Formats: sequence, C-alpha cells, structure tokens
Amino acid sequence: MNTFGHILRLTTFGESHGPALGGVIDGFPAGVAVDMDFVRAELARRRPGQSALTTPRREADSVEILSGVFEGRTTGCPIGFIVRNENQHSADYDNLRDVFRPSHADYTYQARYGLRDHRGGGRSSARETVARCVGGALAKLALRPLGISVAAYTSQVGPIALSPDYRRYDLTLTETNPVRCPDPEAAEAMARLIADVKSRGDTVGGVVTGLIRGCPPGLGAPVFAKLHADLGAAMLSINAAKGFEYGAGFAGAEKCGSELNDEFYTGTDGRIHTRTNHSGGIQGGISNGEDVYFRVAFKPVATLLRNQATVDAAGRPATVHARGRHDPCVLPRAVPIVEAMAALTVLDHVLLARTVRI
Amino acid sequence: MNTFGHILRLTTFGESHGPALGGVIDGFPAGVAVDMDFVRAELARRRPGQSALTTPRREADSVEILSGVFEGRTTGCPIGFIVRNENQHSADYDNLRDVFRPSHADYTYQARYGLRDHRGGGRSSARETVARCVGGALAKLALRPLGISVAAYTSQVGPIALSPDYRRYDLTLTETNPVRCPDPEAAEAMARLIADVKSRGDTVGGVVTGLIRGCPPGLGAPVFAKLHADLGAAMLSINAAKGFEYGAGFAGAEKCGSELNDEFYTGTDGRIHTRTNHSGGIQGGISNGEDVYFRVAFKPVATLLRNQATVDAAGRPATVHARGRHDPCVLPRAVPIVEAMAALTVLDHVLLARTVRI
Amino acid sequence: MNTFGHILRLTTFGESHGPALGGVIDGFPAGVAVDMDFVRAELARRRPGQSALTTPRREADSVEILSGVFEGRTTGCPIGFIVRNENQHSADYDNLRDVFRPSHADYTYQARYGLRDHRGGGRSSARETVARCVGGALAKLALRPLGISVAAYTSQVGPIALSPDYRRYDLTLTETNPVRCPDPEAAEAMARLIADVKSRGDTVGGVVTGLIRGCPPGLGAPVFAKLHADLGAAMLSINAAKGFEYGAGFAGAEKCGSELNDEFYTGTDGRIHTRTNHSGGIQGGISNGEDVYFRVAFKPVATLLRNQATVDAAGRPATVHARGRHDPCVLPRAVPIVEAMAALTVLDHVLLARTVRI
Amino acid sequence: MNTFGHILRLTTFGESHGPALGGVIDGFPAGVAVDMDFVRAELARRRPGQSALTTPRREADSVEILSGVFEGRTTGCPIGFIVRNENQHSADYDNLRDVFRPSHADYTYQARYGLRDHRGGGRSSARETVARCVGGALAKLALRPLGISVAAYTSQVGPIALSPDYRRYDLTLTETNPVRCPDPEAAEAMARLIADVKSRGDTVGGVVTGLIRGCPPGLGAPVFAKLHADLGAAMLSINAAKGFEYGAGFAGAEKCGSELNDEFYTGTDGRIHTRTNHSGGIQGGISNGEDVYFRVAFKPVATLLRNQATVDAAGRPATVHARGRHDPCVLPRAVPIVEAMAALTVLDHVLLARTVRI
Repeated sequence: MNTFGHILRLTTFGESHGPALGGVIDGFPAGVAVDMDFVRAELARRRPGQSALTTPRREADSVEILSGVFEGRTTGCPIGFIVRNENQHSADYDNLRDVFRPSHADYTYQARYGLRDHRGGGRSSARETVARCVGGALAKLALRPLGISVAAYTSQVGPIALSPDYRRYDLTLTETNPVRCPDPEAAEAMARLIADVKSRGDTVGGVVTGLIRGCPPGLGAPVFAKLHADLGAAMLSINAAKGFEYGAGFAGAEKCGSELNDEFYTGTDGRIHTRTNHSGGIQGGISNGEDVYFRVAFKPVATLLRNQATVDAAGRPATVHARGRHDPCVLPRAVPIVEAMAALTVLDHVLLARTVRI
Repeated sequence: MNTFGHILRLTTFGESHGPALGGVIDGFPAGVAVDMDFVRAELARRRPGQSALTTPRREADSVEILSGVFEGRTTGCPIGFIVRNENQHSADYDNLRDVFRPSHADYTYQARYGLRDHRGGGRSSARETVARCVGGALAKLALRPLGISVAAYTSQVGPIALSPDYRRYDLTLTETNPVRCPDPEAAEAMARLIADVKSRGDTVGGVVTGLIRGCPPGLGAPVFAKLHADLGAAMLSINAAKGFEYGAGFAGAEKCGSELNDEFYTGTDGRIHTRTNHSGGIQGGISNGEDVYFRVAFKPVATLLRNQATVDAAGRPATVHARGRHDPCVLPRAVPIVEAMAALTVLDHVLLARTVRI
Repeated sequence: MNTFGHILRLTTFGESHGPALGGVIDGFPAGVAVDMDFVRAELARRRPGQSALTTPRREADSVEILSGVFEGRTTGCPIGFIVRNENQHSADYDNLRDVFRPSHADYTYQARYGLRDHRGGGRSSARETVARCVGGALAKLALRPLGISVAAYTSQVGPIALSPDYRRYDLTLTETNPVRCPDPEAAEAMARLIADVKSRGDTVGGVVTGLIRGCPPGLGAPVFAKLHADLGAAMLSINAAKGFEYGAGFAGAEKCGSELNDEFYTGTDGRIHTRTNHSGGIQGGISNGEDVYFRVAFKPVATLLRNQATVDAAGRPATVHARGRHDPCVLPRAVPIVEAMAALTVLDHVLLARTVRI
Repeated sequence: MNTFGHILRLTTFGESHGPALGGVIDGFPAGVAVDMDFVRAELARRRPGQSALTTPRREADSVEILSGVFEGRTTGCPIGFIVRNENQHSADYDNLRDVFRPSHADYTYQARYGLRDHRGGGRSSARETVARCVGGALAKLALRPLGISVAAYTSQVGPIALSPDYRRYDLTLTETNPVRCPDPEAAEAMARLIADVKSRGDTVGGVVTGLIRGCPPGLGAPVFAKLHADLGAAMLSINAAKGFEYGAGFAGAEKCGSELNDEFYTGTDGRIHTRTNHSGGIQGGISNGEDVYFRVAFKPVATLLRNQATVDAAGRPATVHARGRHDPCVLPRAVPIVEAMAALTVLDHVLLARTVRI
C-alpha cells in the first residue's frame, strides 16, 4: 500500500514528526550516474519556506543515500534513503490529539487503525512527498540520456487560470517566480491572491499542468496499466489531489469525434505524427510519440488559521484553530511532486517496454 | 498488466474478434451466493444493440462460469469465466489491416508490439469490458449484505449536463431511458443529440457520475493506495476515459478552504458525519462514511462513419471510412462499466481493511 | 494467490469436476511463433492414461487458446485458454462429501473456506497442472530461439534412485519408457515397483531431477527473487511436492567449503566457466552460465485403494476407501510439470533481466 | 525483487560496506505493542562475534525505528528502520575489486549489472539479513498473542546430524550453546568440528530445522501461495541455502502412501488432529493445525582463508586468499534468520486468511 510502480518500485515510509522519512527504490536500472547536486536541487524545490507564499516551516531536507549507489553510479540494487525530520514543533499539535480537524485524515485514520500519530498529520503529512522527490530526481537522471524530460507548472490558483494550451507558455520561466507559473503576469496575480487569502487565515486551491516530452511511441499497456491510468493513480496519490485529466480531458467530453480525432501524417523527420494532440500523446493507453500532457486539480489546504467547528474523538462538539506553520496554497510546492511522480511512472513504463519483445 | 486489484484481483483476456473473452477473479471471498440472473442482467446492461442510441451489433454476451462456484456459492477459489464472441463481422476490418485509424490504438499497438490483431480493435476493443461487468456483478453481490451499493448514471452528453449535485436526482430513474440519465427531460435532449450526431456519421462524448453508498469509514490507505487513487486508476482504465475527479474535483480548485472544508458533527444516529461533503466521502485517501461520489469524462468514440485522413503502416497518406457497427456515444454503455469497476475497487478495499488490525 | 511470476504471470483457475480448467498468461512477449502441435504434445505428456503406471482416467486435454495469438504469433496481449473437463465420474466422490481423506486437502479447505467442492479434490486436484503445462509449453517456445532448454526426468521411485549426477545419463532416453527415467534398467525396476505397489492398493513417492541448459549468466536477483528461490517456490507449488534442492543441495550441507567451491577458469570459448558445478549454475541467486540443476521430492499419492481410518465433517470416526481412478505414482506425470514450471520461471527472469540496464 | 510477502511486505536495502542497511515493513497490523528489548535481543542472536565459532567481526547492530510506531504501538503505517554499518574494514576487499571469488556472487553480479560494489559482497552479504531479523522480531510480537510461536535450531553440521524428529529435543536448550543445537552432546561435537575446520582455513555446511507451533488450521492457499511454497521461497532466499523440505521431505519420497498418510482423529480437545504428522502440518498447501516443521540445507561459507584459483574480471587466471573476518560455519547465525523468515511468512498468511470470508 506504500509502494508505487510495476518494475521500478518506490516504497516510502515516515511521518512528519517521527525521526525521519525515507524510501526504497527497487528495480532502478544499474549504471546511472547519480548527480547528487541535482537531487538536492530537486528537493529544494519541494522544500517549505522558499517564499512568503509557502509555510515558514524550515526543513533542511538533507537526503542521505544509504545504498544502491557505488562510486557515483547506481548498482541495480535497491536505493535506500532517509531525510531526517528537524525543526519540528510537535507541541503545536498537542491540542489535536483528541480532536478531528475538518477535511483532514484525522478521523479516517482513527476509523481505520484505531489509533494514530496526531502530530503534523502523521503519515498523511505532505512531508511524505519528500521521498517521492528523491525518487523522481533519480528517475529524471535515468530518463535524461533517453531524451525524455518532464515538466510541470502552476496553471491555476483559485479562479486565476492559464490557457489549457501549454504551448503558449515558455516553460523555462516556471522557476522564475515563487508560484511556479510560466506566465509572469498571471504569476503575480496568483501571488497576490495567495497573499490575500493567507492574510485571512484561509487557503486556496488550484491546478498543476504536467508535460512529458520525448516519450517514445509504445509506452503503456492496453488495459489496466494504461499509461494514463498509471499517471492518474500517481497524481491522485498526491496529497490534496482531487482530479486528473489528460489530453482533451473533461473539456473533450463536450466535443464530437470529428472535432477531437487526431489526424496522422508523416513528418519531415520520417516519423508518424498527429496534426493535433487532443489525445494527449496517449492512444489506447499507449504513448504515440507526441507530448503527453495532463492536469491535476488540488483542493485548498484544509488547515485554516481560524476557528472551525468540529467534534472530538468522543463525538462531542469542539473547535479547532490551527497553530502550526502551514501553506496557504499547495500549488507551488506541488509542481515538483507532480514532476517526480510523472518521472517515476514514465521510467517504470520504459523498463516495462523492454520486456514486450524477446 | 491485465490484472486489477490488490487482494481481489480481476485478470481479463480476450480480443473482440477472437473465439472468446473472459477473466479470472482471484481472492473473491468464499460463501457468497451467486445469483446468475443478476449477473446476466448486469451483462445485459452493457450489451450493445439495446437501443437506437448504441451500436446495432448484437452480442449474446452469454457468460459461462467455469470454476470457483459450487452449489450456488463461491468457494474462495478463482472464478474463471468466458463469454464467446459471436456475430463477428471480421471482414469489416480487412481494410484496416495496414492503416492506422485516427485516435485509435492501431498505431500505438504496432509501435509497442510490432504486430497487432487489427480486427475490431483487438485487445483495445470496448468488448474487453464484458469481463469487468462479470467481475463487478459478483462484487456487487458480495457487497450487498454489507449494505454497500454502487450506482452510476450519465450526467453529461456533449454540452448537455446535469447539476453536479447527484442528490437532486432520483437514481431509480436511471434505467428508465436508453441514455441512463436520471433526469427524464435531460435524457430526452441527450437522446436527440446522440441521434443527430449519429445521423452525421459523427460521435459525441460525455460524463458518467458514480456513487458509492454505505461505505463504512476506514476503507482506503494513506499513500499510494488511497481509495480515490484506486478508483481513479479503475475509471481511467476504461476505454475512452479522459478524466476523473471526486468530491469537489476540478471545481474545488477554484475555492478557498473556508468554503470547502467539511465540518464534523455527531448525528442523531450517534455517528460522526460531515455537514457538507466536498470531500466526496474520502479524507486522506480513506473513506469517512459519507457518500463517495466521482465523475468520469469520456471522449467521443473515435470511429466515425465518414472519411478521415490518416497514414498506412508504411507512413503513406491514406483515408479511412469505418464500416463496422459502432456506438455514436459510449456513455449509456459506460454506466454499468463504471459501476463494475467501482464495485471491484470497494470490495478489494473491504477485504484489505480486514488485515489492518490483528 | 493463483498467479505465478513477476513479469510473465500465469494465473490458473478450475477444479477437476467443474466445466473446465484454464489459465491466463500475461506478460508473454509478442511475436513468438505458436506451434500448437508442440503445445498439444506437451499436454499429452501430462495426460493420465498413458500407460499402466498411471491412472486409467482418460482426459482428452484438448486445449483451446482464446486470445493473445493472431495469425500464429503471440501478440503481447494476455493468452487465455481453457481445457474442458470430460469423462468425469463425479459420483465416485459422493461418499467423500462429508468425510476428510487422510493427507488430502479436504479438511484444510473446509477449515479455510468453510465450504469446498469435494469432487475429485476440487481445486487441489493435480488436474490444475494442465494449465501450467500449457504455460510451460509456450514458455519453451519463447526460450528455444534463445538457446535455453529445460529437461526433467524421474530420478527416484521409492528406494530406487539414480546417481545424483545427471551427466551420467542420456536424457534423450527419458521419453522412451513410461516412468520417464533415462536409465532403461532403473526404469524397468521402477516400473515393476510401481506395478507392485499398485497391486496392493498402495502408492509410492519419488524424486524428479530438473535441468536448465543454455541459461545465460545474469538471470536471477540478489535477495528475495533469487533464481533458486523462485524455482523452489515454483516446484513446491506442484501437488505432492515435499522438498526442493539445487546444486549440491542437502548433500552439500555435509561438506567443507574446500570441497564444494567451484573454481573459475576461462574456457576455450573465451567465456568464464567453473571447473565443477556444485553451485548448480546459480551463485548469489543469479545464474553463472553453467547448467542449472535441481531435485524435487514428491510424496506418495494420498489416495489409496484400501480402507483408511479418518473422521467425518462432524469429527466422528469414519472409513474411506477410494473408488476413483488414481495414479499409483505421481512421478512419471510430474516430469512435464516440473519442466513447465522451470520454463515459466526462466522466461520470467529472462524478461526481468531486460530491465536491469537502461 | 527486494520485497517479500503478499500483504505483510518486507522490503530490504543496503550493502555491508555502505552507510547503513535497513528495511520497510508495510502492511504490518496496527496496535501491536513493540517491545524494543525483544527486537534488540533478536538482533543480538544474529550478530557476529558472539563466540569463537563465528566471525570476530563486531557489529553493534543498533537498530533505529524511523516510522510506523507511535507511543509504543504500531500504527499500521510502514515501519522504516535502519542499522548503521560500523567497524568496516573495506580495505580488506581492495584486492577483490577485479577478481571473482569462487562460489561467491562476484561474477554473477558483474554479469547481471555490469558493475558491482565489491566490498564485503555488497548486496549479497549475509549482513542483509539484519533487516529480516528486525522484521521477524516484530512479526513474532504480532503472532505471540495469537498463540503462534516459531523456533529453529541447528540440526546438522557437516556429517554430525540430529534425529529428524524434533520432538526428541528440548528446544529450550537451543540457546544454551553457541552452535544453537538443543542436544548438548551433539552441540559439543559440532563446536569441535567447526573449530577444527576453522583452524584449517576451511568452512563447513549444515542444516537448520524450523518449527511453527500454534498455527491454526486454514493458513495457506491452494495453488501457488501454498504455505510450504511460501516458506520454501522464504528459506531459499537466505544466503547459502541450498535446499528446503517440510514434513517427511526427501525421505518421504522413498515411502509408500500407506506408511506416510496421516490418519485423522478427534482429540480430547474436541478438535480434529492427525495421529502422525508426516504432512508437516500442511495439507494441500494449507495448515491443518498440527506443528509445521521443515529443514533448510546450508552450504559451507564460500570464503576460505587459504589460496584458491580463480579468474579476474578480464578472465585471466588469478588467486584469491580471503583476508576479511568470516564465519567458518553459517549455521549458528542462520537459526534466528530462519525463525525471522518463518515468522514473517506465517503472519502474512494470518492476515491473508482474514480476507477469505466476508
């Protein structure tokens, strides 16, 4: 239940207020050069405290690789790693031991397990995603020599939304602003909205758009392991995700086949392409060589810095007022996590595709 | 790659123009009474040729259970079953042997496997879902004594959409019209739209809304096997699915936390409930006892009864014009498939939940 | 629980007295030519009624491939197949409905599932292995162009045992006698022993030796998926198997390292070999290019054609006296099953090895 | 490939000369009290340097639990843990960088991965089993309240062997001598043999007998997940294991059914028992409530403190002479590992059995 992937498998563990989080990456190919500076840079993108838009909680997020790498290259053996928890304010959560925060996992954990680590959300803390970012960074390193790259950006915050056409934006601008939105003007408006929401002790949702370029034709599988089904499961497993669509997505549901079908032609490169890409680079669950793009909806963070009515563990009325340090908007930090999960999914399917013909 | 589920595992096989399709359901609990009339009725709902809105292709869809049932009850051993293919018009597909239909899986299969069964879409035919409906029917039978029920309905066809609030509709009306829409008026408009689109040799997309009632608190898992991630993977594995959202979904991305959080209270039944249900019955990936609801977007069927430009296997320009018998709109027949996949997912998690405490 | 393999996965279903048994082979590589005469010949080797040494029960064992093969080649899609049950004498088992046969699975099934199909052993019938032989035959076809071959033979019946050194025997003689023993003299003695045991309504155990030739170096995995651990699990899953050893096996436990270590040298073929092969072709769980050999112990068949004391479902004393048609010795028919499971295991690891480097 | 188990899943990572080894236990039931003194005591049993019979290498083997335990109880979330490597003498292995030690995994790793961590055997070091002992200790804690216990002992060293009947021995004596043999006299002879072998720079093999008591009827599965197949896979995955047998095992292959069948009777406890237990407590792959017992053969350690001929990475003749600190006999330290793997296997099947009926 804590493992993702078919052949390339990431298993994560850890709670936000325990000694450490970490993971094991099994099935990672041997011989990949491990650029630890890149891994650390990827982790830094996820780290809180990067700007006024995110939680002021500071986490060093210093990853220690414990195995599976020898003299700078992966060995094919499992890559175990940990990230120590530091700078915890567990006492911030003492008042939450016996009360269920609205729209959090407190009540459902209690219902499932009969007990829970109430500090910082325990296992349901978004801090778990630090392990995904380590896995994703390594996956990106393995994909790079294959010419496959992954990118994501904030395409909506509250009602402020970019065009669904990712080709309109220069994605090299994504990291130039704290919102991680490639449209500088929209980024500013989003930043203002987040600041405004935060000042009211409130939070706001949004959408991340993901993009996989250089995907060769033939990745995916016909039925349950469709490339988009695996991508969807990957994205929906991220904290606060509420929806996933790829290609034309929900908007395509309104359309006719004559509007949405992607005509094939042979390009000047001698390869088969489609003139449009409503398919989102995936047909019948298998990549067709065009860009794979998708969108992930995130709800507003459930932790509000204001009074909320709820019940305690005995079912009696109670009030919660969060004290910890929290993100007013999950979007900026969700971007690297979306990339990480996409990279893991694609690398898994690259490896699977090696087994299709003998 | 052709197996779905953690403990309850459905493996499907079969192409639309081979001798038969079928499946194996492993991990199905022992002692469940098998009502074959119910199973057959569920299959009949998926069957083509039910109305003018669906393909005139007639399939008897007669299921034969080969194992795992003894004297009317499941034995706990794998349930193997087959559905023979009949009334195939394989010659309808002769002209497609060396040409790639736009927005179909023809090209991607060829790219992945180096060869393909071109008849009727082969493995990517929607006919594969007959095996899911058998599995889903059996899962519903196991869930029924637990008070868990699953329902789905067509909530959008092209631009004609119901309110997102499923509580406004009387779902007992779903089966009273061929569109499977619980709003009779909208159903008629949808039917007219489908007929119109069909008359132009075109197709149209839409949305199915799914609903799980009676789900006890505690189903799901904290990280990768979140109940909504497994539901999402299930739905996205259905042919033509382009998106999945649960609870507030994409619309929730526009909102603030103060609008979207679900306040807890203790009901007159002595149990903890939420006043609103933007969470869609799932918090932190685990059910909270409220209704689980979700939406699945389907693109228009890719097969058009009109000329389309494309390329052949050698990359040369070609034209396709479908001859087979095809659905102008997948929605009505998608409804029972969405239900089947939801039932399988929930029963799987019911069984998983049994292993959480010793 | 009814699936074997990591990437190449065989799922089996069916009871001996239901309508049919069968299986689904998922992950089978595309493009393999399917020689149905070979598949049928392999099934014929497993079939009962081949000689006076085996059960007179006649099973046509006619396999029907339902999917995954198109124009004589595998498509990469799941291969579903069934074998109809015929010539059943279910009434032979009426007296066993409420009684537990000694050393059979009757009592344990009842304990696990609360109910069982008592006819012919239900799911625990050796007839289940027909599905493994289909899978194994196809795996052999995929391995053949890679130069990998699998062989097995009866090396012991009761106290009559061949030398543990398989190189002393001409394995092309294995199929020349009904015992499937490559030593014609020993084969005759074994046949006499089986006939003698049968005449007393008794049964006898034995050992099958298995051999995999042409295994390239590098198949297997370091820890849980060691090649010999997967082979062991495969063999121990065969009905009546009681033990597994590879290379020096239990005899090696008596030895010193100086006696058992396999010295490396470079052969005239320019490749690295070992002078001895106590390792059984596997070192650290990974093949080293030498012959892989192993032995599987089988207990005597539990069904005796004589009175045995036991209890009924209520725990009251009872007597059983088998009436059905049964094998006095499982060994001759176990040989093709051992081969089948070995072929599946090796092909699975061949595919896995493709994913190790990028 | 580095994960063991169906529902209860142990994933291990780490090499002997990297920073740390560790593991993740997923699917562990919630609410189990974690007695860390017991866990540490179990680890101490595996630790080298316990007596003159084992390697003088000293490992603190101090385990750090990083997650999944809160206020002394398991939470149902994955239990991550690490054991730091200390007191490494990596320089001892410098001469092995480019040479393949006979009967080690050096050559096969190189063949599989194209590179390897040559220090201390890397991933194939027996040190990996420290993670299994942590998992096994926790599994024992979960099994204890269910009345299920696991024991193992050295039953053979070289040619010195105990009776196969475990009931002849007082297993409380197992830990009273460094060989872990419950027969004090045999233990002394074994100790002398090991000392003698060691003095010659040689090593010696042996057998461990395992025993599971209190196993309720109904654990296991009919086909591939037979209890003994899973136990066999577990045991064969232990370093240096060469064979596995349960119940009558290989000796049973010589017998007749009339000698080996286990007659049922109803005991004074009102429960069904067998008068003999040649079945080893497992019938048709499912436990019958009697003692489960089995034997695991271990080859002599491959590392000899004497010259051995071999080849280097280029295939040229070379000589190895081990310098590190090594066990002359793996048996005493294999005992707790056998117990650990048995405990994990049984707990996994206890959890699986919860899913069989609804």
